[in-house]
Amino acid sequence: MSEKTTPRIMPGFMELLPPDQIMFNKIYDTIREVYESFGFLPLDTPVLELSEVLLAKAGGETEKQIYRFNKGDTDIAMRFDLTVPLARYVAQHAGELTFPFKRYQMSKVYRGERPQKGRFREFYQCDIDIIGNEELPLIHDAEIPAVIYNIFKKLDFGKFTIRLNNRKVLNGFFSELGLADNVADILRVIDKIDKIGAEKVLAELAEYGADGEKGEKILSFITASGSTDEKIAYLKSLNIENENFKEGTSELEQVAGYMRMFGIEDDYFTIDLTIARGLDYYTGTVYETVLDDYRNLGSVCSGGRYDNLTGFYTKQKMPGIGISIGLTRLFSQLKNAELIKPESNTVVKALVAPMGVDMKYPLEIAEKLRSAGIPTEVYYQDKGFKHKMKYANKMGIPYVVIIGEDELKDGNVTVKNMETGEQKTVKAEEILDEVK
Amino acid sequence: MSEKTTPRIMPGFMELLPPDQIMFNKIYDTIREVYESFGFLPLDTPVLELSEVLLAKAGGETEKQIYRFNKGDTDIAMRFDLTVPLARYVAQHAGELTFPFKRYQMSKVYRGERPQKGRFREFYQCDIDIIGNEELPLIHDAEIPAVIYNIFKKLDFGKFTIRLNNRKVLNGFFSELGLADNVADILRVIDKIDKIGAEKVLAELAEYGADGEKGEKILSFITASGSTDEKIAYLKSLNIENENFKEGTSELEQVAGYMRMFGIEDDYFTIDLTIARGLDYYTGTVYETVLDDYRNLGSVCSGGRYDNLTGFYTKQKMPGIGISIGLTRLFSQLKNAELIKPESNTVVKALVAPMGVDMKYPLEIAEKLRSAGIPTEVYYQDKGFKHKMKYANKMGIPYVVIIGEDELKDGNVTVKNMETGEQKTVKAEEILDEVK
Repeated sequence: MSEKTTPRIMPGFMELLPPDQIMFNKIYDTIREVYESFGFLPLDTPVLELSEVLLAKAGGETEKQIYRFNKGDTDIAMRFDLTVPLARYVAQHAGELTFPFKRYQMSKVYRGERPQKGRFREFYQCDIDIIGNEELPLIHDAEIPAVIYNIFKKLDFGKFTIRLNNRKVLNGFFSELGLADNVADILRVIDKIDKIGAEKVLAELAEYGADGEKGEKILSFITASGSTDEKIAYLKSLNIENENFKEGTSELEQVAGYMRMFGIEDDYFTIDLTIARGLDYYTGTVYETVLDDYRNLGSVCSGGRYDNLTGFYTKQKMPGIGISIGLTRLFSQLKNAELIKPESNTVVKALVAPMGVDMKYPLEIAEKLRSAGIPTEVYYQDKGFKHKMKYANKMGIPYVVIIGEDELKDGNVTVKNMETGEQKTVKAEEILDEVK
Repeated sequence: MSEKTTPRIMPGFMELLPPDQIMFNKIYDTIREVYESFGFLPLDTPVLELSEVLLAKAGGETEKQIYRFNKGDTDIAMRFDLTVPLARYVAQHAGELTFPFKRYQMSKVYRGERPQKGRFREFYQCDIDIIGNEELPLIHDAEIPAVIYNIFKKLDFGKFTIRLNNRKVLNGFFSELGLADNVADILRVIDKIDKIGAEKVLAELAEYGADGEKGEKILSFITASGSTDEKIAYLKSLNIENENFKEGTSELEQVAGYMRMFGIEDDYFTIDLTIARGLDYYTGTVYETVLDDYRNLGSVCSGGRYDNLTGFYTKQKMPGIGISIGLTRLFSQLKNAELIKPESNTVVKALVAPMGVDMKYPLEIAEKLRSAGIPTEVYYQDKGFKHKMKYANKMGIPYVVIIGEDELKDGNVTVKNMETGEQKTVKAEEILDEVK
C-alpha cells in the first residue's frame, strides 16, 4: 500500500464541506416544505433509464451531452432533466394516478458538458409540475407563481420579481404582423435589447422581415412599461383581432387576478412581454424569476405551460404547467455573491460537557435533549473546560450543558448560552426551558 | 408522432407510486432526523467518480458489478457504496474537517448485477460513520448502536435486537486453538448452524483442522447462551491468555456498559459470538440488527469498527466505525411483509372546498393554513359537494374546509373532520384550533 491514489473528484461536480452542505440542505428543505404545503406529491425516478425511452424525444445538442453507455446488451442513459422521466412516469402510470397530478421531484440530473465556469455536469433540479388529463384549469397558472412567491419569501434572498408572459400573446402579435414564421429569430433578437440597445435591435429585426413600421411596432411592444393592469390595458388597446392574441391577453389578465388572490403582492410580479422560454415547448403562460439585487444571475426559477407532456409515449393528451429551480447553480451563485454564508459548522444545538464525572448522567441529559428534538453531542474526551468551550465556539454550537460533580450531586445542569455568555444552573427537568 | 415508445423502466430499479413514496420518505426523514440528533453532519458526494479513484481498492466481484464507462478520455464509474467516497472525501479534505468527523449520507448507489428477486441495481444506503484522526475512543462503539436503537424505536416496526460481537474476540479465540489461518472458512461454516445443525457443522469444521476437542470447543463457544453479562462472564471463564481475545472481551464489556448508559434497554441488544461481518474490513466491534418478528429478512442494519478507512489515499491513519441501512431493500421487504402500509394518498392535510363562491376568500384561508405548516389544497373545479367529499376520502385528506355563501358572508369556515364525520362552523381566525 505504498502507492497512494490522489483523492479527487471530476471537474463540474459540486461537493461541499459540512458548513456549506448544511446551508444547502436548509434551502433544499425549505423548497421541499413549500412544495408539499401546496399538495405536490413526491416522486423519485431512477437516475438510469433505457436510452430508447429517455431519448424518445431528444436529439442534437441534448443527445451529445448525455452520459450514455452499454452494460451487457442494454443501452443505458443517465437522466438529463426531470421532465422526460415525469412524462414517462405519467404515461406509464396514468391509470393509477389522480388528475390533476401534482408532483415535485428534487434530484440530481446529468449533462456531460465540457466543464466551464458556472456549468455543472451533475446538478440538482427542483421541479414541480401539474399535469391534467385532457384539460387543466387556468387557475393552476397562478398557483405555480404562488409557490415561487412563498419559496423566495421564505428563503429571504431579498426582493425578487416574478416575470410573467403568455406565448399566445407573442405568437398572436407576430402573426398579426405577418411574421409568424420568424418568431424564433425575432425573439432571439429581442432578447438582446439590454445588451445591444434599441438601434441595433431594429437593424437586426429588419433582417427577419420586421423593417420600418413593423420594427417600430415590435420595439414599442417589447418596451411597453407600466403596472400589470396598465400593460393589460395596453395589450387590449392594440385592437389586434388575432384569436390567439386575444386569448393570451385574457389569460394574462385572469392569471394576474388569481395571483393577487393567492396573496402575491403586486410589487413581486410584473408582465414582461419579452419572455418566451423554450420555443418548441411552452404554449401559454411562461415565467422567469429574478432576484432584484442580483439581476446578473439571470432567471433563478423558470417554467410555463405546455399543451402535451406525454406525446412520445401515449395518445392521451396531457397538458401541464411547471417550473424548475436549478438549485446547484443557484447555490453556487449565491455563495459566490456572498448572499448566503454558513451560520454554523454543525447541525448540533447543544453540547453536553461532562467535567470529571461518569458518563451515565451526561448521556441521560443528552438523550432528554434529543427526545425533545434538539440535536445534541456529548464531549467524550477528557479535556479541560476551556478546550470544550473553544470547540463549541469553533463549531457554532449555541448551548453548552456543563455537568460537574456539583450538578451530578444535586440533579442539576449548568446551561451556558454561547451567544450571550449567560450561564444558569437549573434542575435537570427544567433543561428544556433553557435550551430551545 | 404516430410511433409511440412504450414507457417503462429497467428491472432492478425501484420506482414508487405516490402513496408508497410518501411512506418511503417518512422512513427516510425519520432516519435522517435521528442521525442529525446525534450530531452527524450531512454529506453529498457525486454519483460519478473517476474509476481510478473509486476503484483504488476494489477488485474481483465488486469490479464486475460496477457501471463504468468512458466519456471522451475519462474513465468514469458510478459509486457502488458510500464508504469508498467517504474515504476519498476524508483523505481529500482532512485538513478542513474536525475530528472525530461524524457524517451521514443517505443516497443512491449502483450495482450492475443480474436482476433477481430482492436485488436492486439502484438503491438507497443510509450510512453513518465516525472517523478519528489516528485514534477514536471506544464510547463511539456504543454511540452507533444508540443511534440504531433510536431509529428502530421511532420507526416502530416492532421489537428488534441489536446483535453485538467483537472481531478481536473471534480472532483471539481461533488463534488460541491454532486455527488463525482458517478463520474465514470456519466463520463461514459456523454461519450455517441454523440451517444444517450442529452435527454437520462439526463435520465441516473438521475439514478445516477443527476436529475433535477443537470442534467441540468451537461449538460450545458459538452456542453460548445467557444474558449479556453471563456471556461476558463465560468469555472470561475460558481463561484464554491471547492478548487479542482479552482486549476484545474487555471492549465488549465496556461497550455493553456504555450502551446501557445511552439508554438502550437490555432486552434490545445481545452478544452474538457468531457475527463476523465483512472479513477483510472490520477489526473490532461488529453489529447486526434483526426485526424479531421478521428474522427471515436478515440483518436490516449492519456495520462495525475498522482500523483504517483511508489507506488507499493517504498515509494518515483514520480508524472509524459505522453502520448502514439498506433502505430500498428494507422498504421493499417490509412492504411485501405488509408490515408497512400507505396511510394516505397525499401529503395534504386540509382540502378547502369552495361552494359557489369566488376564489378570493378560499385562497386566503388556504394561505392561512399553509403558513401554519398545514399542507393544503384547494378544490378548484366547480363540482358538487358529494364529489368533493369523495375526493377527500379517496385521497385520505383528514380535514375538509367548506366555504359557501353563508361562511363567506359571516367570515366563517365549516371544518369537517373526515375521520369522525364531525362538522363545525367557526370564525376564520379560529380555523387552526380545528385543523391540527
